[in-house]
Amino acid sequence: MSSETYSTFAQRVREIYTARSVEALLDWDLETCMPPKSAEHRANQLALIAGFAHEKLTSDELGSLLEKLAGSPASDDFVAATNVREMRRMYDRAVKLPTDLVRRIARSVALAKEAWVKARKDSDYQRFAPHLQGLLDLKREVAERIGWKTEPYDALMDEFEPGAVAAEVHAVFEQVKKELVPLVAAIKDAPRQPDLSILERPCPVDKQKEFNRFIAEALGYDFQAGRMDISAHPFCTSTCPHDVRITTRYNERYMPSSLFGVMHEVGHALYEQGMDPQHAATPMADSVSLGIHESQSRMWENQVGRSRAFWRHFFKPLQQAFPSLADVKLDDWVFAVNNVRPSLIRVEADEVTYGLHIMLRFDLERRMIRNELAVRDIPQAWNDNIRKLLGVTPKNDAEGCLQDIHWSGGTFGYFPTYALGNLYAAQFFAQARQEMPDLEQQISRGELRPLRDWLREKIHRHGKRYRAGELVQTVTGRPLSHQPFVDYLNAKLRPLYGLGDRGQVTGDK
Amino acid sequence: MSSETYSTFAQRVREIYTARSVEALLDWDLETCMPPKSAEHRANQLALIAGFAHEKLTSDELGSLLEKLAGSPASDDFVAATNVREMRRMYDRAVKLPTDLVRRIARSVALAKEAWVKARKDSDYQRFAPHLQGLLDLKREVAERIGWKTEPYDALMDEFEPGAVAAEVHAVFEQVKKELVPLVAAIKDAPRQPDLSILERPCPVDKQKEFNRFIAEALGYDFQAGRMDISAHPFCTSTCPHDVRITTRYNERYMPSSLFGVMHEVGHALYEQGMDPQHAATPMADSVSLGIHESQSRMWENQVGRSRAFWRHFFKPLQQAFPSLADVKLDDWVFAVNNVRPSLIRVEADEVTYGLHIMLRFDLERRMIRNELAVRDIPQAWNDNIRKLLGVTPKNDAEGCLQDIHWSGGTFGYFPTYALGNLYAAQFFAQARQEMPDLEQQISRGELRPLRDWLREKIHRHGKRYRAGELVQTVTGRPLSHQPFVDYLNAKLRPLYGLGDRGQVTGDK
Repeated sequence: MSSETYSTFAQRVREIYTARSVEALLDWDLETCMPPKSAEHRANQLALIAGFAHEKLTSDELGSLLEKLAGSPASDDFVAATNVREMRRMYDRAVKLPTDLVRRIARSVALAKEAWVKARKDSDYQRFAPHLQGLLDLKREVAERIGWKTEPYDALMDEFEPGAVAAEVHAVFEQVKKELVPLVAAIKDAPRQPDLSILERPCPVDKQKEFNRFIAEALGYDFQAGRMDISAHPFCTSTCPHDVRITTRYNERYMPSSLFGVMHEVGHALYEQGMDPQHAATPMADSVSLGIHESQSRMWENQVGRSRAFWRHFFKPLQQAFPSLADVKLDDWVFAVNNVRPSLIRVEADEVTYGLHIMLRFDLERRMIRNELAVRDIPQAWNDNIRKLLGVTPKNDAEGCLQDIHWSGGTFGYFPTYALGNLYAAQFFAQARQEMPDLEQQISRGELRPLRDWLREKIHRHGKRYRAGELVQTVTGRPLSHQPFVDYLNAKLRPLYGLGDRGQVTGDK
Repeated sequence: MSSETYSTFAQRVREIYTARSVEALLDWDLETCMPPKSAEHRANQLALIAGFAHEKLTSDELGSLLEKLAGSPASDDFVAATNVREMRRMYDRAVKLPTDLVRRIARSVALAKEAWVKARKDSDYQRFAPHLQGLLDLKREVAERIGWKTEPYDALMDEFEPGAVAAEVHAVFEQVKKELVPLVAAIKDAPRQPDLSILERPCPVDKQKEFNRFIAEALGYDFQAGRMDISAHPFCTSTCPHDVRITTRYNERYMPSSLFGVMHEVGHALYEQGMDPQHAATPMADSVSLGIHESQSRMWENQVGRSRAFWRHFFKPLQQAFPSLADVKLDDWVFAVNNVRPSLIRVEADEVTYGLHIMLRFDLERRMIRNELAVRDIPQAWNDNIRKLLGVTPKNDAEGCLQDIHWSGGTFGYFPTYALGNLYAAQFFAQARQEMPDLEQQISRGELRPLRDWLREKIHRHGKRYRAGELVQTVTGRPLSHQPFVDYLNAKLRPLYGLGDRGQVTGDK
C-alpha cells in the first residue's frame, strides 16, 4: 500500500465524514434550536451538504484510490485495512444505486410519510397500503442491485447491521421467543405486582434536569465533549468524539421517562465519546452497526440503570432531589422501574415485551420482502401475531400495524437492530461481570467508571475494525446467543414478581 | 438574457449562498453551543464548507454563466440585474486573489493573532509590529490585485463597504470631527452630569432575559424566525430571512449592557428578517454593506432606544421588571443612558466619542496603506491623535494602538463602516421623521411597528439592489452628510447637559 496513495485516500475519507458530520449538526439544530419558520431553508442546506458528501463518496477519484489500495497487502496495518474495507463497502452501496432510483425512493417516502400520518390518525390502513406497496417494490429493487446471498432482506438489513444474515437472526429470535412468551404470561399472573403510582409522583422539571446531569456525569459522560438539550424525540448525535450531544424531554408527572431516557442516550454517547480521536472522521472512529450502538444504550439503561445494585447507591440522591419520593422504599422503586406488562405500542413497551414487538415486525418484514405476505394481509397477520406473542389485541390498525413511522420511510431491516441491541447488551454485560468479579459491588458504590472503561477498551475504541458478529465473538469468546439475555431477565424479574425458578414456571404452562 | 441560462445561474448562486449559510450556522453553534473540546473538528468542518463554497464561486461554470449573462440587456429586470452584478463582483474578487496569497494571509493572520494577544497582555508593541508590517504588505498586494481608482485603501474598504471611496468618507468624517470635538469638550465641563450609579443597580439575570425578550418583540423581532442565546461577544447571524439569531451576555450589576446590546442586535436582525424570502440565498436578499447593516442596529439602539420618547412608554415596564429601579426618575434614567465621556477604549465608548475613536483608526489605516505612516511610528501617532480628539492619553499601548483585534486579522478598511453606520442611521431616521410626522408620538406610545415597516419597505426588502451611497440618495433624496448625525446629537444632548444652543457653545471654545 503506497503511503502517498493511502494518505490521499484518508484525506478524501475525512472530507466525506466531515461533510456528514455537518449534516448531523444541521439535523441536531433542526431538532433542538431551529426557529420554526426556517424548515424549508434547512431542507435546502441538508440537501446541499448531502449532495456534496454523495458526490465525494461516488467520485471517480475515490473509486480509483480504492482500486489502487485493493491490490496492496494491508493485513499488518489494521487501521488502514479497516478504513479501506469500510469505504469500499460505502462506495459500493452508493454507486450501485442509480441516482434515479434514489430520487424515486425519496419522492415515494415523502408521499408515504404524509399518507401514513393521516392513515394513522384515522386508523385507515387502505390509505397507506398503496404507498407501502410502492416502497416494498422499490426496496426489492434496491436489494437486487446491492446483491445478497441468502435472501433479499439481508441486503436491506445490511444497511443498518452490516454482515447480518436474516436466517441467523431469525434462529436466535426464535429461541428468545420460546423463553420470553411464557415469562411474560407468568409475570402477568404473578402473585406480586409493582405499585406504578410512585412513578407518577410530581418531580419539578428543573430538578429533573439537575439530577439527569448528575447521573450522566456519574455514568462517565463528558460534558466538555457534549451537551444535553430538549427535543420532541430523544436522540444522540455525534459529529466527532469530542462533540457528542444528547437530548431528552421532560414530564413533571412521569420523571422516569427522562431519567431512563438520559441513561439510554448517555449509553449511545459513551460509545461515540469512547472512539479514538486520532481516527476521527474515518471508519476507525465510527460505530459498528445500529445493533451494537443500541447494545451500549440498553446496557446503561437496563443492565445498569434498572439494577438493584445501581439504586443501592443512587436512590438516596434521587430522594434528595425529589422530596415527593421521600416515603418510597428502595425495593418498591426497583420493582416499579422493572415493571413488565404486555401492551400494544412498541415505544411504550418494557424491556421484556419490547423484543417481542420487534420480532413480530422482523417476521412480517421478511415475509413482505419475500412476497410471501401481501400488503392487504398485513393488518390481519399483525393482529394474529401480537395476540400469540403478548396476548393482546389491537382495537384498530392505529394501535397495530400503523403505529410505527419506519415503513413509511421505507426502512425495512431496521427493526431487528433494536432487539439485537438487547441481546448484544446482555452478552457483553455477562462477559464484563465475568472479567470484573467486583462489578456489582462497584456499581452499588456508584463507581461506574470501571465498566465504562472496560467497554471503551473492548468495544468503543475499535470503531469499525470488527463487524458485529466478529466483535461479539472477540469480546465474549462465542457467537451471539439468546442465553445471556434470557438469563439476565429471569434472574432479575423472577424474584421481583415472586415467581419460582425458570423450570418450575415453564412447567406450569 | 436567456431564461434557461439565468435559471442555471440562479441555482448556482443559491448553492453558494446556502453553503455560506451552513458556515454561518457552524459559527453560531461554535459561539453558543459547541462543547469546548471540539474546536479542532469545528475548524475542519468550517474549512471544508468554506472550500466548497469557494470552489463553487470560482468555478469555470459560474465564470462562463456570468460571461453569457453579461452581454444581455437586463435593465428591465432589476432582480436579475442585481444578482448578476453582485455575483460578478464576488466572482471577480475571488478569482483575482491567487490561492497562494489567500493561504499566506491566513497563515500570517493566525500568527499575528497569537502575537497580538500576548502583545496586548504585556503592552509590548514591538512584539506585534513585525506581524503588522507583514499584514500591511500582504494587504497592499491584495489591493493591487483587486484594483482601485483613487487609492489602494479603497480596494480594502470595498470588501466591507462596496463602492465606498476613502477620500469621500474622509471629507464627511472631517465635518463630523469639526462639530463633535467641541461638543465632547463642552459636555465634559457641562454644568449637569448624569448619576451613573443607577445603571449599576442589581437586576437578576432571569428578569433581564425576560425583559429583553419583551423589548425584542416590541421592536418587531420575530421569534418564530429567530432566537436569542448567550455568547461571550454579542452578535447576529442570519442563515436566511426565516432564521436570524441574536446573542447577548448578562451582567447582574450592569443591566444596560444586555438591554442596549439586545436592541442593537435586534436592529441587525430586523434588517435580515426584513429581506424578501422569495429571493432567499441570492444577493437580492443580502445586506448592502457593513455600514448599512450597522445603521440598522444603531438606529434601534440609539435613535429609538436612548430616546426620551421610547422611555416614556417603556420605563414603567422596566421598573416593574427591576424593582431596584423603583425610585429612579424617568429623566435621570434617560440622562444616564445618554452619558457621554471621553475614554480610551473604543468598545466602551458612547454614541458621540465612538465615532471619534473610529475616525482616528481610519486616518491611521489610510496613511499606513499609503506608506505614509511607518509601523514603528503608529503608537506615537495614535497617542497624539487620541489626545487631540478626546483629550485623553493612554498610559500604554494596550490602552492605545494594541486595543483592537482588527489589525491582527488584517482587516484594514473595516473600522470606517462603524462610523458610517452612525451617519446613515441619523440620516435615515431624520427622513423617517419627515415622512412620518407622527413617529415620535408612536414611539412614545410603544408603537414601533410603523418604523420597522418603513425601514423594511425603504431599505430591507431591496437587498443588494442599491449600493450604500445610492441607497442613501434614494431613501433620503440626498447624498450622505454629517449634518443629520450632528443635529441629532446636539438636539438630544445639549438639553440633557444643560448646554446652550450650538452656536453659543462653539463660540465659547
